[in-house]
Amino acid sequence: MKTQATFYHAGCPVCVAAEQTVAGALDPVRYVVEVVHLGEKKDRLPEAESAGVKSVPALVIDGQSFHINHGAELSALK
Amino acid sequence: MKTQATFYHAGCPVCVAAEQTVAGALDPVRYVVEVVHLGEKKDRLPEAESAGVKSVPALVIDGQSFHINHGAELSALK
Repeated sequence: MKTQATFYHAGCPVCVAAEQTVAGALDPVRYVVEVVHLGEKKDRLPEAESAGVKSVPALVIDGQSFHINHGAELSALK
Repeated sequence: MKTQATFYHAGCPVCVAAEQTVAGALDPVRYVVEVVHLGEKKDRLPEAESAGVKSVPALVIDGQSFHINHGAELSALK
């Protein structure tokens, strides 16, 4: 069974670089990567916050949140 | 030809989590991942700085630096 990885972003340049390079570099054999634009899908904000996401871009793998560089605070997207 | 990815860390708990989860999740078909402990290999500090690394843990892929969460400033390792 593949592990769920969720990449949260807000369309910012820092986010795009992280998405294309880091999220895109994950092993497709082991991971299913979902990309979520939190600026467009505000209903996913609570889920991201529950996973520990404080800013975007962030990658949540196996319930662990990893903030990759810094584009925007989650609070700026509400 | 595989792309070089370098994961810089300093042995901190934040670093270990990022190494095991993010660096370990990269696609082995497309990437060769080198793990460098900058606390032990201070001679690699200039190279990390040239790649834009400011703090550890950080992942450099294709010359782009991605800071993953925050363990320690590079200046603290000198």
